[in-house]
Amino acid sequence: MSAGQGDPSGPTRSDRSDRSDRGEDADGTGADRGSSLPPIDFWFDFISPFGYFASLRIDALAARHGREVDWHPLLIGVTVLKVMGLKPLMQTPLKADYARREIRRYERRHGLRLGRAIDGEPMNPLPAGRAFAHLRRHAPAIATPFARAVLEDYWICGRQMDHREALADTARRAGLPAAPIDAALADPVAADLLRAEVDAAITRGVFGSPFVIVDGEPFFGVDKLALIDEWLAAGGW
Amino acid sequence: MSAGQGDPSGPTRSDRSDRSDRGEDADGTGADRGSSLPPIDFWFDFISPFGYFASLRIDALAARHGREVDWHPLLIGVTVLKVMGLKPLMQTPLKADYARREIRRYERRHGLRLGRAIDGEPMNPLPAGRAFAHLRRHAPAIATPFARAVLEDYWICGRQMDHREALADTARRAGLPAAPIDAALADPVAADLLRAEVDAAITRGVFGSPFVIVDGEPFFGVDKLALIDEWLAAGGW
Repeated sequence: MSAGQGDPSGPTRSDRSDRSDRGEDADGTGADRGSSLPPIDFWFDFISPFGYFASLRIDALAARHGREVDWHPLLIGVTVLKVMGLKPLMQTPLKADYARREIRRYERRHGLRLGRAIDGEPMNPLPAGRAFAHLRRHAPAIATPFARAVLEDYWICGRQMDHREALADTARRAGLPAAPIDAALADPVAADLLRAEVDAAITRGVFGSPFVIVDGEPFFGVDKLALIDEWLAAGGW
Repeated sequence: MSAGQGDPSGPTRSDRSDRSDRGEDADGTGADRGSSLPPIDFWFDFISPFGYFASLRIDALAARHGREVDWHPLLIGVTVLKVMGLKPLMQTPLKADYARREIRRYERRHGLRLGRAIDGEPMNPLPAGRAFAHLRRHAPAIATPFARAVLEDYWICGRQMDHREALADTARRAGLPAAPIDAALADPVAADLLRAEVDAAITRGVFGSPFVIVDGEPFFGVDKLALIDEWLAAGGW
């Protein structure tokens, strides 16, 4: 298991099994701090390395402040390319070279090692995004564990995650129940659910991966995690 | 004096008069740490609010590690628009709204208050950039003090900084000597010097404002200042 190794704030795979329990308050009254504060919202695109990096830290960060995290799918092919009219990061002169260096620096700093070239053709993010959107609606307890497993298999293990078979295999090896996964991968309404998620994100001003909204305040980029920590500690400013 | 008020790491105008002394070592041997380490390189565009924010902190940050800062002009109209083929920040859907919020949040966090609307037509950055490039070559001791004074009059006081008269007035009020300023504002070679600076920056991979290179390692954005601090403390990783 190389993800998160040496990263003081990065969760390991064993965190996954705890996630569906975190929403429950200790005494069942619903009155403890953890359940009285709204979750923070986190968007990522499966094809975004910086979204993957943030995914390893966002839950622990939120938990330090008694908060849950609501993970949302995003398609930067829609936001960055179509809505904003920009280019893909790795096709942008100067910035592509910078991103390569920044990713390597981040890996060294956090003890990570990506298992795939960031210059290669990215996976098609639609099958994973659609399944994730479907799980969010119909089996929310395993939606984020599914996303984590896909991210890790894609970014760390370098597996191809373009097709349903690969996604089903990843979910199976992560110990997720087959029925809701199979439904998420087969139900054609999943495409509509993903589209609705992306449209809702755009309405809220979300455009990049990772993106976080805390109590209405937007934060873009993995560089903002420290500031989000300060914001949560201070209650904003 | 509102710039840097309440910002624990922000310098005040009184720092300016110290800057030309900082390159001298205490005993004249050239052997102390401050003069044996190369400067870190800092690029900004006068029209970039994030470049202005970084300008308030970069010298103090470097000084904590015994380093000088070599300030360089940049033209994001060349790098972002022409070389990278992107849009101006404030004309980019979604990102413009986000930038407005991020700037206000940064102002509150650092006790700053910009004296101009960030949505208005920016100043023409060429006269200031050309004069700054000329001073860097012909009167380097006052180049950064000139840039600081222009940035503060533009961003905090909301003055128009498009013309030579305004730039000369700003330099005069900042107590800078008239002769090199007048030469910098009148010499037509200043345009070539600025062009050469921007070309050299692009060759080094610089594309945005602020941008910092520490011992060959590039950092883009004011969000990176904390990471630069870590990098300098650790000697890289």
